[in-house]
Amino acid sequence: MSQILVVGSLAYDSIKTPVGAVNKTLGGSANYFSVAASLLSPVRVVGVVGSDYSQEDKKILESRNVDLQGMTVKTGQTFHWSGFYDDNLNEAQTLQTDLNVFADFDPVLPQAYHDSKFVFLANIDPVLQLKVLGQVKSPVYTGMDTMNFWIQSKKSDLLKVLQKVQILLINEGESKMLTDEPNAIAASEKLLRMGPEAVVIKRGEYGVILNHKEKGLFVLPAFPIAEVIDPTGAGDTFAGGFFGWLSRNEKRPTFEDLKQACFVGSCLASFTVQDFGLKSIRAVTAESLSKRQTTYHQYLQVST
Amino acid sequence: MSQILVVGSLAYDSIKTPVGAVNKTLGGSANYFSVAASLLSPVRVVGVVGSDYSQEDKKILESRNVDLQGMTVKTGQTFHWSGFYDDNLNEAQTLQTDLNVFADFDPVLPQAYHDSKFVFLANIDPVLQLKVLGQVKSPVYTGMDTMNFWIQSKKSDLLKVLQKVQILLINEGESKMLTDEPNAIAASEKLLRMGPEAVVIKRGEYGVILNHKEKGLFVLPAFPIAEVIDPTGAGDTFAGGFFGWLSRNEKRPTFEDLKQACFVGSCLASFTVQDFGLKSIRAVTAESLSKRQTTYHQYLQVST
Repeated sequence: MSQILVVGSLAYDSIKTPVGAVNKTLGGSANYFSVAASLLSPVRVVGVVGSDYSQEDKKILESRNVDLQGMTVKTGQTFHWSGFYDDNLNEAQTLQTDLNVFADFDPVLPQAYHDSKFVFLANIDPVLQLKVLGQVKSPVYTGMDTMNFWIQSKKSDLLKVLQKVQILLINEGESKMLTDEPNAIAASEKLLRMGPEAVVIKRGEYGVILNHKEKGLFVLPAFPIAEVIDPTGAGDTFAGGFFGWLSRNEKRPTFEDLKQACFVGSCLASFTVQDFGLKSIRAVTAESLSKRQTTYHQYLQVST
Repeated sequence: MSQILVVGSLAYDSIKTPVGAVNKTLGGSANYFSVAASLLSPVRVVGVVGSDYSQEDKKILESRNVDLQGMTVKTGQTFHWSGFYDDNLNEAQTLQTDLNVFADFDPVLPQAYHDSKFVFLANIDPVLQLKVLGQVKSPVYTGMDTMNFWIQSKKSDLLKVLQKVQILLINEGESKMLTDEPNAIAASEKLLRMGPEAVVIKRGEYGVILNHKEKGLFVLPAFPIAEVIDPTGAGDTFAGGFFGWLSRNEKRPTFEDLKQACFVGSCLASFTVQDFGLKSIRAVTAESLSKRQTTYHQYLQVST
């Protein structure tokens, strides 16, 4: 089993959805990723928090044996995101982004992280993604995410990172924005020509598409959830499950491994949306995950 | 192998999509349904056309051994629908609906149709759907579709039909409208409480959800198509493939039969969207269908 390195945001989120609201709940891509991935593999985090970041919140990852040597505490406030969802829970509307200490984030990896084999660059400035990747000596498998803000403001840097990773995990809307292509399948084809050997397009409640340069397509519907409370972090949970599954092997993943990783990632993401913030995903155990995997498998089963 | 009875529209469509346009091309739910279903089973059509309906267009179904005894020709113009799609190909925008001879459509079944075992009530006035159903002596399996117009204008009649069919096939947006429920899974649960033993929610490029009162859920992504030319008729093609598959058996379908029917229906619908109108689905052969089924199966395959 290999250590996964993740770099991303550690944040407080204020979220409103049609069924309720929370104020400054723990969030950020690196938190969702780490909680999910740590169910399957050891995780190392690179990120920055402010002096307001509570000991209790720090312990959430520590208690899951997540390595926090790469977490810097800076004077000031932790990154804060505020947003809401209307009935279309597939898309968040941002109300406010307070970067705070995240504005000057300069990821320097602890010596002990340089040998990381699996690396996930969550949605941060592509310049910083490159910087992190440059500090890892010989990664086996690297992936990245991104968002509309970087596509619009730092596209050329983003395209450089895309040349250096094996896989891109990206939301459907952003895959279309980055490729200027209205069809998701066509967008995934274009993205493969930009560098990575595989692309996962995340379609929220509709599931994912995996496209692999040599092996082609895999399509997977989401685990059906009748009451979605808060979709925040579902994509990062997916990424955590995805990398958590892959890094159980030391080797470069096969297409079959990637498909299984999509299945595990989707299964974990379905827990995240069942409550606000990290509440539901934190409560997942090996048993509840395994049980849902069995149900999920049944939902997909058809003899043809 | 059983005869399927379908009642629905026989129409001329004028369609504009981001890649092109066609004027008064053959369409209507009963045409899409019959072309698809006739690949698998014999079909009987109940519908009305105007005196402008060409012999050539009539021959499209006749050449596929579709029984047209139930097709009435009336003096006047055939039903004409005109609409367009923007980049969101999942939803048609209607420009104009000329009911023409369809306005006074009064479906009287030929004697020979009374023994039909599989019946599909495509999207027409629920009062007429009921009238058709009342003329079939002892159907084995009946299904229906509907649309926003009937949900808004004839909901109580629609609810009566729902009490009498075994399965409802409905678009995602309309499933939410009918149940006042923003979540598709929750909507499918509510629809089951309105009568049918099963519901298929059609999600366009995202695939379908099947929910069965006793057996639960099945989720199936659509066959991925990188270039969608015209999505018109995809849902009716799905229904045709679905019923075409089921009626190969004389017996009431099992949950497994319904899942396979979703698979075949989705596979056929993926052909329809690859060209305007009926062009692409008409060209499908047993061989091209079988080949795509194999590919589709591969795209779905994951060992878990």
